[in-house]
Amino acid sequence: MTDSAVTPTIPLDADGVHHGFLKLPYSRNDSAWGSVMVPITVIANGAGPTALMTGANHGDEYEGPIALQELAISLQPEEIEGRVIILPMMNMPAFATGTRCSPIDGANMNRSFPGSATGSVTQKLCHYIATRLVPHADIVLDFHSGGSTLDFLPFAAAHILEDKKQESACMAAMQAFNAPYSVRMLEIDNVGMFDTEVESQGKTFVTTELGGAGTSTARSVAIARKGIRNLLIHAGIMQGEMEIAPSVQLDMPDADCFLFAETAGLIEYMLELGDSVRLGQPVARIWSSDRTGVAPVECYARRSGILTARHVPGLVKMGDFVSLIAIEGPA
Amino acid sequence: MTDSAVTPTIPLDADGVHHGFLKLPYSRNDSAWGSVMVPITVIANGAGPTALMTGANHGDEYEGPIALQELAISLQPEEIEGRVIILPMMNMPAFATGTRCSPIDGANMNRSFPGSATGSVTQKLCHYIATRLVPHADIVLDFHSGGSTLDFLPFAAAHILEDKKQESACMAAMQAFNAPYSVRMLEIDNVGMFDTEVESQGKTFVTTELGGAGTSTARSVAIARKGIRNLLIHAGIMQGEMEIAPSVQLDMPDADCFLFAETAGLIEYMLELGDSVRLGQPVARIWSSDRTGVAPVECYARRSGILTARHVPGLVKMGDFVSLIAIEGPA
Amino acid sequence: MTDSAVTPTIPLDADGVHHGFLKLPYSRNDSAWGSVMVPITVIANGAGPTALMTGANHGDEYEGPIALQELAISLQPEEIEGRVIILPMMNMPAFATGTRCSPIDGANMNRSFPGSATGSVTQKLCHYIATRLVPHADIVLDFHSGGSTLDFLPFAAAHILEDKKQESACMAAMQAFNAPYSVRMLEIDNVGMFDTEVESQGKTFVTTELGGAGTSTARSVAIARKGIRNLLIHAGIMQGEMEIAPSVQLDMPDADCFLFAETAGLIEYMLELGDSVRLGQPVARIWSSDRTGVAPVECYARRSGILTARHVPGLVKMGDFVSLIAIEGPA
Amino acid sequence: MTDSAVTPTIPLDADGVHHGFLKLPYSRNDSAWGSVMVPITVIANGAGPTALMTGANHGDEYEGPIALQELAISLQPEEIEGRVIILPMMNMPAFATGTRCSPIDGANMNRSFPGSATGSVTQKLCHYIATRLVPHADIVLDFHSGGSTLDFLPFAAAHILEDKKQESACMAAMQAFNAPYSVRMLEIDNVGMFDTEVESQGKTFVTTELGGAGTSTARSVAIARKGIRNLLIHAGIMQGEMEIAPSVQLDMPDADCFLFAETAGLIEYMLELGDSVRLGQPVARIWSSDRTGVAPVECYARRSGILTARHVPGLVKMGDFVSLIAIEGPA
Amino acid sequence: MTDSAVTPTIPLDADGVHHGFLKLPYSRNDSAWGSVMVPITVIANGAGPTALMTGANHGDEYEGPIALQELAISLQPEEIEGRVIILPMMNMPAFATGTRCSPIDGANMNRSFPGSATGSVTQKLCHYIATRLVPHADIVLDFHSGGSTLDFLPFAAAHILEDKKQESACMAAMQAFNAPYSVRMLEIDNVGMFDTEVESQGKTFVTTELGGAGTSTARSVAIARKGIRNLLIHAGIMQGEMEIAPSVQLDMPDADCFLFAETAGLIEYMLELGDSVRLGQPVARIWSSDRTGVAPVECYARRSGILTARHVPGLVKMGDFVSLIAIEGPA
Amino acid sequence: MTDSAVTPTIPLDADGVHHGFLKLPYSRNDSAWGSVMVPITVIANGAGPTALMTGANHGDEYEGPIALQELAISLQPEEIEGRVIILPMMNMPAFATGTRCSPIDGANMNRSFPGSATGSVTQKLCHYIATRLVPHADIVLDFHSGGSTLDFLPFAAAHILEDKKQESACMAAMQAFNAPYSVRMLEIDNVGMFDTEVESQGKTFVTTELGGAGTSTARSVAIARKGIRNLLIHAGIMQGEMEIAPSVQLDMPDADCFLFAETAGLIEYMLELGDSVRLGQPVARIWSSDRTGVAPVECYARRSGILTARHVPGLVKMGDFVSLIAIEGPA
Repeated sequence: MTDSAVTPTIPLDADGVHHGFLKLPYSRNDSAWGSVMVPITVIANGAGPTALMTGANHGDEYEGPIALQELAISLQPEEIEGRVIILPMMNMPAFATGTRCSPIDGANMNRSFPGSATGSVTQKLCHYIATRLVPHADIVLDFHSGGSTLDFLPFAAAHILEDKKQESACMAAMQAFNAPYSVRMLEIDNVGMFDTEVESQGKTFVTTELGGAGTSTARSVAIARKGIRNLLIHAGIMQGEMEIAPSVQLDMPDADCFLFAETAGLIEYMLELGDSVRLGQPVARIWSSDRTGVAPVECYARRSGILTARHVPGLVKMGDFVSLIAIEGPA
Repeated sequence: MTDSAVTPTIPLDADGVHHGFLKLPYSRNDSAWGSVMVPITVIANGAGPTALMTGANHGDEYEGPIALQELAISLQPEEIEGRVIILPMMNMPAFATGTRCSPIDGANMNRSFPGSATGSVTQKLCHYIATRLVPHADIVLDFHSGGSTLDFLPFAAAHILEDKKQESACMAAMQAFNAPYSVRMLEIDNVGMFDTEVESQGKTFVTTELGGAGTSTARSVAIARKGIRNLLIHAGIMQGEMEIAPSVQLDMPDADCFLFAETAGLIEYMLELGDSVRLGQPVARIWSSDRTGVAPVECYARRSGILTARHVPGLVKMGDFVSLIAIEGPA
Repeated sequence: MTDSAVTPTIPLDADGVHHGFLKLPYSRNDSAWGSVMVPITVIANGAGPTALMTGANHGDEYEGPIALQELAISLQPEEIEGRVIILPMMNMPAFATGTRCSPIDGANMNRSFPGSATGSVTQKLCHYIATRLVPHADIVLDFHSGGSTLDFLPFAAAHILEDKKQESACMAAMQAFNAPYSVRMLEIDNVGMFDTEVESQGKTFVTTELGGAGTSTARSVAIARKGIRNLLIHAGIMQGEMEIAPSVQLDMPDADCFLFAETAGLIEYMLELGDSVRLGQPVARIWSSDRTGVAPVECYARRSGILTARHVPGLVKMGDFVSLIAIEGPA
Repeated sequence: MTDSAVTPTIPLDADGVHHGFLKLPYSRNDSAWGSVMVPITVIANGAGPTALMTGANHGDEYEGPIALQELAISLQPEEIEGRVIILPMMNMPAFATGTRCSPIDGANMNRSFPGSATGSVTQKLCHYIATRLVPHADIVLDFHSGGSTLDFLPFAAAHILEDKKQESACMAAMQAFNAPYSVRMLEIDNVGMFDTEVESQGKTFVTTELGGAGTSTARSVAIARKGIRNLLIHAGIMQGEMEIAPSVQLDMPDADCFLFAETAGLIEYMLELGDSVRLGQPVARIWSSDRTGVAPVECYARRSGILTARHVPGLVKMGDFVSLIAIEGPA
Repeated sequence: MTDSAVTPTIPLDADGVHHGFLKLPYSRNDSAWGSVMVPITVIANGAGPTALMTGANHGDEYEGPIALQELAISLQPEEIEGRVIILPMMNMPAFATGTRCSPIDGANMNRSFPGSATGSVTQKLCHYIATRLVPHADIVLDFHSGGSTLDFLPFAAAHILEDKKQESACMAAMQAFNAPYSVRMLEIDNVGMFDTEVESQGKTFVTTELGGAGTSTARSVAIARKGIRNLLIHAGIMQGEMEIAPSVQLDMPDADCFLFAETAGLIEYMLELGDSVRLGQPVARIWSSDRTGVAPVECYARRSGILTARHVPGLVKMGDFVSLIAIEGPA
Repeated sequence: MTDSAVTPTIPLDADGVHHGFLKLPYSRNDSAWGSVMVPITVIANGAGPTALMTGANHGDEYEGPIALQELAISLQPEEIEGRVIILPMMNMPAFATGTRCSPIDGANMNRSFPGSATGSVTQKLCHYIATRLVPHADIVLDFHSGGSTLDFLPFAAAHILEDKKQESACMAAMQAFNAPYSVRMLEIDNVGMFDTEVESQGKTFVTTELGGAGTSTARSVAIARKGIRNLLIHAGIMQGEMEIAPSVQLDMPDADCFLFAETAGLIEYMLELGDSVRLGQPVARIWSSDRTGVAPVECYARRSGILTARHVPGLVKMGDFVSLIAIEGPA
């Protein structure tokens, strides 16, 4: 196994609660012998499965970090059998600046797996996580939201996989998470994703999109908190009853679900997230951002369905995502 | 009257519809003879009152610009008696970058009035608006929202003024705007505000806070659209029936309505906007943003009331606003 | 063939005129699901050769973009037999900022071919162009000028190639372009150039340097416009008579044609572009930029010839190019 | 007289040649006790008039700095009677970065006169020049060119003044400078200009625009060199024969001489500097910079005359200057 | 008294120990309702004098902040009679970025007194300190060091004042502080200094320079710690015995004490701080920073004396301070 | 051998003294045909060994550049037998900005060896040095210091190597350099270091750490000067007597020698460099940087020994190096 420059400041396999850091040396102009310090908590109690729970893969998504910070101080070893490894801010440099990508190397962590032991800071973190943490996990939960520039209906998701047994373990875990919406996804361009790396190691994997707009709400954090508890019970690590409510099943069958802007300007949405849309209906219109007296460009739905995600900032640039319309699918 | 370097490219007092710009020369490294161009539309028809309607006083607030762009292309001269002057992006440099303050001089336009003919770009724009537009207006509507870093319950507001006749004209105009919430405000530190300048000229003035988080929604734009139409009818410029729904009356009696963070970190809200809060209840808690295993700092309500505004970004810095709790007041 | 993340929004092989974009997803802090949109026009009419015409390989060179924008709206399918693929701003991110290199990854597009399907934005665009467009072209014309920091006598150029048949096709195409000057070039360090990629696929290739100083003139655009028409006729795509005027043939035999500054300072040229120079004559002198009273450092010609290119900005840095002296050569 | 923090490192009134600096303390993060050092040369010989000659009032204009650097090392005291004060880089901070405005305070020096002893760095330099140098001068020559973003026909200029005796001294000096073009100017907005300050002290003042595009040429420097010598003879400081060639007399009667862009995009000029234009003729057209297939916006001449100045960068922003059309006027 | 936007979060006149903040609202792009929070501690016990002790007037000077942070947690009310107001990081925004000047407005706090209630952030802080804290103080101690770009022999200093009674109170306080060196200073350009403001209110004032190079040492902090205790005893606020060691008395009689660089480059010091220098001896020499083979420029002492301060960074720019040579003077 | 784009402007193997540059073309926005120019001096006289001496591998370390600039102008060919190749600023781009890493590609040169002929600017320079200079050297001396963020006791060092003969040649050279301290190092993570590249070519290699804090002193430069002369004599290139004083031998046996900060804040050192420390003693303590009233976090020594290096800036970030404690070891 390739050496990693990352070292944990706590044991990863000792019983009890340990709070510490993954420490990665990072030499730079303002600190010749500086380091990146990624907070980690390990809570373990005897034999049993291992869950790896991660937040802030993208640094501007907050439900995961909040719910996992709470888990790290509240979960007692005696409540569990097995181990929970918690990385509330997996992409610490990006989290610290509140940005999607790392300010150090500009990398999107979720396109940098499986990383490299000799690459950039993000690549070294990915390499450590992929080679030192994921192999020891039975189930992995990676929290996402829309970040600063997208907003989503709150959903948990699992991927359509070649290995149907693995797929159904993932789908079961997603249902256990029990977000208000549940999405069965066929990832087209999955190169470099954490999801892909975890799934390629044969693990059960659940991801989420729980909101966005660069913030979290009492409601969205509650979804994360319930999902964590449900998943630990589902995985056999915690005892107890899962809290299950109805969840709308969504599907995103093809590229027509997505609309992108071919004009820059001031965007006006004609619908709210969760509203029904009919094929050909205007989802949004884009007004001139530098003059008055010009009619807006309309963006029409290319499918009927439910408005599932939208762009957040009031201005759109050419090529920006405008809307995702999903359809209700079979559970 | 002091000369202004700003020149309109259209007549401000001719009947019909004119779309153009307020043009301000702005010499700089990337354009020695460049200009700032603020879009303006004037729609006029014979005698009658003048309404001045402005958006993007802060560049990251979007309901005003959208509703006013729509007004500028849809309002017909024959529908009105009098004049409507529309500045959908009054602070054009800030609007163009999607920021609260102007990227040119860093100024907060709403603390730069009455401006100066020989000052910075923002000051020159304020001076022109204060000396060339406001004096001709009978009623002024200035749209605000929370911008990128705040989120508000949607309200219209009018100020408590020394001149009680003027105050009641403002309150009546606010009620005509008929946002879901209506706020009677005592502005403590009003130096430099557009509000103050307009009111000091004896005009009827209404302002709003219609949402925030750096975006707008179908719902928040609908509030702006209805408010504009109602106000034009109220002012006697348009004919027709105002559309009036119940509006919750709010009051912000003192400084205890406001909470600020004394700790930096990852903020979790315990309540949604519009929820009721009791004195002493935790409104939010702030988690460590660089380590696990530390209990959060709680922020307690210093009043009972309704959660009316909150901070948006997932991280708070020391001194950032946390929450505004207003109380239901008399209409 | 490796998958490309780039997708065209128009068909590349349908008859008629199609205007659209090459769309490349580009996730970043200010747009999680954003894209780079490279404008493209395809004009096709039945069987016949394909010409690929590209501008703004470097983003601060303007004759190509202007002449190709005009071509895209003026060329009628019925005027041609075959196909013209037009990319007026091939390096759209650099063009949008008016810089030589891409603001996204800092890359010089003309040193990034053949690109990579999994690389940076520039590499992905290069990969698409090299694998999806060039293979379908018979002749390729890539417009260059001096950009913001160089100024050139206007010339078209073709390379000395190992395959003499291909070389003479290229030389003939260069003569058809018929710029005021024509240059036969031996490229020493051609790794990564678009030229090299196109030539290695056996295509006929012409490039140009039509001026510079970060702008274009009526005269330099006229050269581009005439060159395009001549080349389309030469290629058998258009009918008609080529417009041919005398062209000075230039040669750049060795490294002594080039002068570089070994001193930073304020540069004064002693000659105009196109002037004759004798070996040993001062071409420029460099004055101190921080004090008076110091004699300038002189830069002497290392060959006799014609001043063909010079540095533009008034200040030079150490190592900056000072002058190119070419010699008149055989046609 | 208000104290100035600027101190010269050489005597300003001693005979002979002295090269030194105007030193202004400037405390900042990267040098707590740093200074701005503006190079100065004084060449004096006995009684006689004083000429003050300044370059780089805007930091990206190069004919003045080059010609004055040469003057500073070549003019011998014995050639003159009186004194020549030479500031080749009057706005040294801007000159050092090659920008129009100062990188320290963002100020346009030519809008910062008469400055202030307690203001920003630019204001302190202006205050020193206005209170310590100008009062001792009989004649002042300030060199300008178009800088990085404008290009001009080469002209010298003098202002129409209320004091007709002073005006005719200025016009005579302008004719003595004898640039290829000579302009009689009515400055509308002259607040803060060096010109205004010098003229208000009753001095003879000449300014120039000798080219632009962020560079200089052999030809434009030759104009500056000849103008300096002619002016020193005209002022009675040097002996000798002035070198006089025909000069085209230009006038700029009103605001219709100027065109500005109301659309951003890729600009194509239809004419060269010096070409004749007829009222209504297109001077330039602006192409879309982000898509193909769109007809350009044309910019029509609002007067007949001569194309005297144009925008340089290939892209224009809204409000940017497009063209200056002057008319031939009486000498 | 002009209103101030600054509010303390603790009482300034209550007995006991109070830790809190001076809170100043600061609206900006990343926090519309943000604040600057300057930490403050007040320790009080009954009647007695008030001492105001401030650090980080310049944000990159560390002895004051460390010694005052220690004082704030260790001083017990029962140890004192009177009051100690402690601002360890008076210029909090600059301290937070580790820079001399404030990152908010670029201002040097020690040239911004007496400030302004309506000015920039630095001016508002200065105004509050000057009008709300200084008037209540009997003695003021302001800690300085060389910051990132200067290094000093450790000294305390007092100014030569017109009021000789006040001067001798200041000199006595300086001797009580008892740094290794003691300096009697005639401040030439004292406009805007905190020193000047405090002295103009008739208070006893001591300042220091305790080292530099952007750091502190065990030795330099020990000097600060001892000085604080001595001064509290001297002021009659604490009981106890002052710790007094010999202190070298220094004088800086005129401008010849200071050397500045007239050449940029790589600086080599020929002496250590504290070494004796003779008039005409080379203190430093400046090597070319871009080429080899060039002899260095030497900087000669313009006085005999002791090397008291020097430039820190390895490179000097033109106009940078090189050395301060002080002379031993009478106590 | 792979081609290199680097070309020297002087012969590397001619007798006499030659000053010039290693010139590397570097095309960029502000200079399309620009270059990086690394100063080099070669002094040669007939047969004999070759020494390669390099400074500014990290751009903010100054003893090497100063001592080597002096060597380049003072060493006479007739004093030597063999050749001395001098690169006082090996990492010229970083040296020019006074930063550890290159401003061009952000690379740490001492982690970029053996470089690449087709990589970034730093990689191309490393490749040239590794393939064109090192192979011709018999002995290599690379100067380091702590740079802007570290401070060291002055030492020379040699590595523990597998080839014991090579190791003892290196140790002998280190003793010849004769710094006040001498360190025998086991480099754990040596990938990419210049040291590793030179050693892997079987050469004798010495490195140093001579101080830090972003500057040099008369004392630290004297150590470098003496070391150079001693080493040239030791290598048989110069004649003469080495100047040898006692040197403290240090060892750094394991990771417990190093302390890193797990808390950000204001750092106070309890000891000076060179002081003895006992296991468990506090080396430093970290105060809150944003509030008063909080006890500092202490950093305890994990070994007894000598404080050999420390962090410089007054603020520490999480993960920053705090201290290196070495032990006295056998010579």
